[in-house]
Amino acid sequence: MSLNKTGNIQNFLGCDASYDDANVVIFGAPYDSTTSNRPGTRFGAAAVRGDSYGLETYSPYQDADLEDKHIYDAGELELSFGRPEPVLDVIENATSQILADGKIPLMIGGEHLVMLGAVRAIAKKHPNLRIIHLDAHTDLRQDYMGEPLSHATVLRRCHDILGDGCIYQFGIRSGTREEFDWAKKGHTHLQKFNLAGLVELVESLGDVPVYFTLDLDVLDPSAFAGTGTPEAGGISFMELLNVIILLKRLNVVGCDVVELAPNIDASGVSTAMACKVIREMLLAIS
Amino acid sequence: MSLNKTGNIQNFLGCDASYDDANVVIFGAPYDSTTSNRPGTRFGAAAVRGDSYGLETYSPYQDADLEDKHIYDAGELELSFGRPEPVLDVIENATSQILADGKIPLMIGGEHLVMLGAVRAIAKKHPNLRIIHLDAHTDLRQDYMGEPLSHATVLRRCHDILGDGCIYQFGIRSGTREEFDWAKKGHTHLQKFNLAGLVELVESLGDVPVYFTLDLDVLDPSAFAGTGTPEAGGISFMELLNVIILLKRLNVVGCDVVELAPNIDASGVSTAMACKVIREMLLAIS
Amino acid sequence: MSLNKTGNIQNFLGCDASYDDANVVIFGAPYDSTTSNRPGTRFGAAAVRGDSYGLETYSPYQDADLEDKHIYDAGELELSFGRPEPVLDVIENATSQILADGKIPLMIGGEHLVMLGAVRAIAKKHPNLRIIHLDAHTDLRQDYMGEPLSHATVLRRCHDILGDGCIYQFGIRSGTREEFDWAKKGHTHLQKFNLAGLVELVESLGDVPVYFTLDLDVLDPSAFAGTGTPEAGGISFMELLNVIILLKRLNVVGCDVVELAPNIDASGVSTAMACKVIREMLLAIS
Amino acid sequence: MSLNKTGNIQNFLGCDASYDDANVVIFGAPYDSTTSNRPGTRFGAAAVRGDSYGLETYSPYQDADLEDKHIYDAGELELSFGRPEPVLDVIENATSQILADGKIPLMIGGEHLVMLGAVRAIAKKHPNLRIIHLDAHTDLRQDYMGEPLSHATVLRRCHDILGDGCIYQFGIRSGTREEFDWAKKGHTHLQKFNLAGLVELVESLGDVPVYFTLDLDVLDPSAFAGTGTPEAGGISFMELLNVIILLKRLNVVGCDVVELAPNIDASGVSTAMACKVIREMLLAIS
Amino acid sequence: MSLNKTGNIQNFLGCDASYDDANVVIFGAPYDSTTSNRPGTRFGAAAVRGDSYGLETYSPYQDADLEDKHIYDAGELELSFGRPEPVLDVIENATSQILADGKIPLMIGGEHLVMLGAVRAIAKKHPNLRIIHLDAHTDLRQDYMGEPLSHATVLRRCHDILGDGCIYQFGIRSGTREEFDWAKKGHTHLQKFNLAGLVELVESLGDVPVYFTLDLDVLDPSAFAGTGTPEAGGISFMELLNVIILLKRLNVVGCDVVELAPNIDASGVSTAMACKVIREMLLAIS
Amino acid sequence: MSLNKTGNIQNFLGCDASYDDANVVIFGAPYDSTTSNRPGTRFGAAAVRGDSYGLETYSPYQDADLEDKHIYDAGELELSFGRPEPVLDVIENATSQILADGKIPLMIGGEHLVMLGAVRAIAKKHPNLRIIHLDAHTDLRQDYMGEPLSHATVLRRCHDILGDGCIYQFGIRSGTREEFDWAKKGHTHLQKFNLAGLVELVESLGDVPVYFTLDLDVLDPSAFAGTGTPEAGGISFMELLNVIILLKRLNVVGCDVVELAPNIDASGVSTAMACKVIREMLLAIS
Repeated sequence: MSLNKTGNIQNFLGCDASYDDANVVIFGAPYDSTTSNRPGTRFGAAAVRGDSYGLETYSPYQDADLEDKHIYDAGELELSFGRPEPVLDVIENATSQILADGKIPLMIGGEHLVMLGAVRAIAKKHPNLRIIHLDAHTDLRQDYMGEPLSHATVLRRCHDILGDGCIYQFGIRSGTREEFDWAKKGHTHLQKFNLAGLVELVESLGDVPVYFTLDLDVLDPSAFAGTGTPEAGGISFMELLNVIILLKRLNVVGCDVVELAPNIDASGVSTAMACKVIREMLLAIS
Repeated sequence: MSLNKTGNIQNFLGCDASYDDANVVIFGAPYDSTTSNRPGTRFGAAAVRGDSYGLETYSPYQDADLEDKHIYDAGELELSFGRPEPVLDVIENATSQILADGKIPLMIGGEHLVMLGAVRAIAKKHPNLRIIHLDAHTDLRQDYMGEPLSHATVLRRCHDILGDGCIYQFGIRSGTREEFDWAKKGHTHLQKFNLAGLVELVESLGDVPVYFTLDLDVLDPSAFAGTGTPEAGGISFMELLNVIILLKRLNVVGCDVVELAPNIDASGVSTAMACKVIREMLLAIS
Repeated sequence: MSLNKTGNIQNFLGCDASYDDANVVIFGAPYDSTTSNRPGTRFGAAAVRGDSYGLETYSPYQDADLEDKHIYDAGELELSFGRPEPVLDVIENATSQILADGKIPLMIGGEHLVMLGAVRAIAKKHPNLRIIHLDAHTDLRQDYMGEPLSHATVLRRCHDILGDGCIYQFGIRSGTREEFDWAKKGHTHLQKFNLAGLVELVESLGDVPVYFTLDLDVLDPSAFAGTGTPEAGGISFMELLNVIILLKRLNVVGCDVVELAPNIDASGVSTAMACKVIREMLLAIS
Repeated sequence: MSLNKTGNIQNFLGCDASYDDANVVIFGAPYDSTTSNRPGTRFGAAAVRGDSYGLETYSPYQDADLEDKHIYDAGELELSFGRPEPVLDVIENATSQILADGKIPLMIGGEHLVMLGAVRAIAKKHPNLRIIHLDAHTDLRQDYMGEPLSHATVLRRCHDILGDGCIYQFGIRSGTREEFDWAKKGHTHLQKFNLAGLVELVESLGDVPVYFTLDLDVLDPSAFAGTGTPEAGGISFMELLNVIILLKRLNVVGCDVVELAPNIDASGVSTAMACKVIREMLLAIS
Repeated sequence: MSLNKTGNIQNFLGCDASYDDANVVIFGAPYDSTTSNRPGTRFGAAAVRGDSYGLETYSPYQDADLEDKHIYDAGELELSFGRPEPVLDVIENATSQILADGKIPLMIGGEHLVMLGAVRAIAKKHPNLRIIHLDAHTDLRQDYMGEPLSHATVLRRCHDILGDGCIYQFGIRSGTREEFDWAKKGHTHLQKFNLAGLVELVESLGDVPVYFTLDLDVLDPSAFAGTGTPEAGGISFMELLNVIILLKRLNVVGCDVVELAPNIDASGVSTAMACKVIREMLLAIS
Repeated sequence: MSLNKTGNIQNFLGCDASYDDANVVIFGAPYDSTTSNRPGTRFGAAAVRGDSYGLETYSPYQDADLEDKHIYDAGELELSFGRPEPVLDVIENATSQILADGKIPLMIGGEHLVMLGAVRAIAKKHPNLRIIHLDAHTDLRQDYMGEPLSHATVLRRCHDILGDGCIYQFGIRSGTREEFDWAKKGHTHLQKFNLAGLVELVESLGDVPVYFTLDLDVLDPSAFAGTGTPEAGGISFMELLNVIILLKRLNVVGCDVVELAPNIDASGVSTAMACKVIREMLLAIS
């Protein structure tokens, strides 16, 4: 299946450039079959697209407007359910097309596993890739109930590709003792609970190509309830916003926003949060 | 009342026989990874177990009481998420053990695909097996988005095992034109919309071993809203109850109740319905 | 504002013809500002469009398939909130364009008042128009709290245009005494509670141009809870389906489906019902 | 419109007579402390009062209008929580006052136990009282977990007062075997599942004083989901409506509507149903 | 306890003074027809009144008790739906009456547009009026989709009355670039994101008459989810509480609390928040 | 995996020790009959047990793992509804057994009144008991609507047992003026709004036996919405976590976690919060 390049009338707010004119391409990855707790992230990207019209295109935080940007929204990838392999292939393929055309992909999940498809494509083009990972969970298991491809193993699979020291994890507050111990051996840089060291990291990375993966459950559940496994003790929106604005100073070659399960938060606050986060990310990277 | 010191046990209402004494064994199959619309049936069996205590053990319909029966509740099988093959293996294995011990399995889903694990085990013991299938959907696709193992293909996979004319479908009101046409060629007996012919079928089956699979979405959504893909135009509870009572006259060697997604019906009516349906099934087959 | 004729990637299921090839044109009318009880029908058409993908294109009831039809979905009209006049103008204008191009409009509400915009346009082309109206409510007030344009007055406003004896109301079970009395004087044909006489009406109408307006609250709340003012004692889905199939024998020049408030029925059953009703209507009129 | 300066009043729709002018007096009994399954009926009467304004005062079923009646709404009784005795005392006292003033009480629950307070008062004035009881449940236990005062024992407590043969139960479909057996011995007239015999009963009762107690869970959960213990297999709204209209032919000296738990049915359908049922009851008894 | 025979009264907690004795008058303004995102604020005041009984009359923050105050609750104004003009007239009229009687009005919305009716009345009496405005949104558009009267234009309409420099906006974090630019030209004092400068403002205002308008969406959605357009990045309850206590030092001649949409936050937290905010406001201004 | 043939067991995550091996014993107290606002805490313990499997056994905060602990989960006590006395007897009895066996009880509510049963048992063994009480509410009334046993009086009843100066209350922000005044006279140590002084208290208590009672509504509603009477202005999870870790330094002889009403927070965040709080408490006291 090739990427839809011919237009999607229902875009994310303000993302109505043609594919050719765009320097950033959004797409949805509606897959959540390996979710071990409450599913529903498959509806994340569609919900974000629909609710984005409750938002303004202008950000008073960055004094910038989506109407001045060139962003194309390719809509939802057609993904099957159940086995993860064919799903990851479709995502890798779509990402590769976007990269080949010199654009930056922003994928909206879906569960965190979808990230692996994107990283496979990007690491081929950028072997020196670094990953900045915001999450409540380590996601570093070798396998989950015997399954190597899972939302709970996805950063470990990225480590398989990139090797030691290339993954920077922040906000982590849940995982097995084995995962924390494994990280501590230097396989990843893991910052428990908060964002300490992130500003310094951004300074040090310079032009190195970076993939930014945002598991929205890094936010405190008070700010973001709409996710399968909410973990008390997370970061605030203002802390996250400051990280996003820092992306301007990085060479972001791809990014994602994952783990919004819109039906879990019937108030719509979580979907509205995701919309605003994506608006700010688009303004920062485009 | 003295404190329970021997273990914290949560069975389906009134199903507290020991395994050895039981002639019926309940187990849950919490898997919904191939669900193509709204997921959540993974929580079906656990919800039924919890809410069953709002029910009486006595049925005025059958003038019978679960307290006079010998039923064991084995709890939930431990199933992984994502790929269906290992899941079906665990279900087949559990079913085989129950059969080997001379008991009747009653599986609570989970999505409809879990049925395939049970049928694989039962068909080995009973090669002349017949399936009575109540559902809103045909479930007869050869594959779904390239995937042969799916809730949308499960009866087709059962047909692969049993061959033409062994599957009796009732209440069907949704499917592709190809599925309806395929059934019409004699591969299955498909009764559209209602239960016409079911009484006669029961008369004719005699002692032939029967697997009874109940996709609860055969019920009208007014009676049962808690399912991923509700289809208007279904049967009523009283119609279903009459079918269940007929099970007494069949040689039921296994059965299931699938596709309850409890969180979709926040009123609890659907879970209460499933509890009552299971109570009546247990009274009919034990 | 002119109608979008250039394509809407998020269509109602199977309605992906080009505007030029289509003989039926769907559009959404997201307005609910005069709703006097619980609002939310503004989200009706968008919800239907999104959830339609849980449905099959094939109807076993009519043995027909949307894939064989030529239907264009123009998406949502851009309507303001508050004052009804400008909203009705936009609807009238869109309807007129569709009529001018020789196509049949199917409008998805929104509240019932949106119907008036369509009837204004159609009555200009078809002065001998008849209206078949299924509803729980009379909608015949002269004004509502001083306001002549309201969901509670919309059929009275249609009567202003068409005159006595041109409106056939069925399933009506709520209204003021004055409204029932006014209808009884011969201003409209009002059938209380049920559909008695509808088959005979269809026989008698022959080629007369008919506008079919379906307020979904004519359904019993057990079947359709997702509406602002549910009224016990309504018709069943099967009764409604039989009416819809009768549309084949009428000269339907326009129609609507209104008063779905999707958020009121969190189970999704009402939205799924509306999807199926619209599928069957499309198959019947195209 | 000038500002209301004489007090902020919220009645049930159309029940704005003064106490002295009224022949029927409504009051709420917000108590649910003995509920053994899901609580919440304490909010029933307040919800009904608020949502009644979505209804018309006119009934096309009875061709009658609340505006022509004289009904006073006394609001909620002030009831404590926990121990039932003081609660029943308050209810008995309020009922006695209404009776002493020659008016008919209509109590809105709350759980079914509140009925006992009213029956205590009424049976003092009318020793030959008969009770017509519509319910899904027998409510005939001698005690529930050791407690003689409970929603599950309330009709048994009424039997303590009235003796054998004075209670007529309809629609019953859930209870222990012991309860059904006890009724069968002639203690009560118990009609399982449906309303068979009710018309004949009304004919035979003549002028005998009757208390009508309506546990709304007698309705099928498809029609009425908002109750603590929904029981599939109930009666329809139209069946219930026909019973209510029969009340005109009885000497109703008191009545209640109980077991609406409004928060359990977030769609509002159950509360709207209760409003309509109460409107029809008021029109029938006043 | 004897039965209430003198009228069924539902006030906001503790606000049971007679109109004549009161120095503060509460009324509800149930209108939300221009809401462009999710409607439902029409139910705000009624919800607040009902849920206020979960609160204590005593505030430990101000060491003051509503029982020591003289406040009258006039209930809901009767407002039509749709066109805003007649609605604003009713509100202006009610406000004028309260002012004429020397009392302070506290209006509970409804959407923000209702404020305009109150300001029209108050500005006539107090031409040197100042407005303190807490909100997430600028509300400064000249028109919204062609409509000059809208929740999105309401502060601009107030500016039409009061002129430059009389409106002080705090907590603003959403709007078009044009609105922020327009404010920056000196038309209003607009403090982005937070409350900086508010204490100093209060000091400087002295005896100038002040209207305080509180759009509750100024709160962070974590604290207040029950509103149509939640905007991440808002202020906390404790910050808001400190502002409210400052009202004691101002000459508040009128105030409102708007944009609670109670059904959007099913947990009831938002309605409980609004109740507490109103209690504290009443204690501060009376 | 072979089928579980030895009984279907549902514990709180990781609490699968035998009773004899355990040093901490969990039990549920499903009672909420005196709740004066919204009920539903009866489902608290069952919800916590079910959702605990979304959590890890390992705590990165304490670097400790439930798998290294010896904890037994006795499931739910069988409690009746309505009158509180027999319920408190069952709780007192269960607590006494656990104490007699030299173990620490951790009770999961249920409403706060259940605490009284535990304190009665513990104070018999430890007459010099101190209570540390975190709550939004004073709970110090002498009676509530005439009832001395109520969630609103429970700490007063504990004071009846322990006398002046033995109860330390923190985070209190709601109550009557009389309750605050009564505390101020030295009957309890009451810290309004926050946790000031708690660290010093822990230092000073040394080996004195302490009962720790945690009413989860001490948390801010943004963090914990799932409770009957949410009170804005509460403490954060991180503040609570720091208190829990301090328990290590105390001689905790019993504790409880009460007032989770899981159905009130449909997002599941509150139940997940309670699970994590209980995990941390178990790690701190065992």
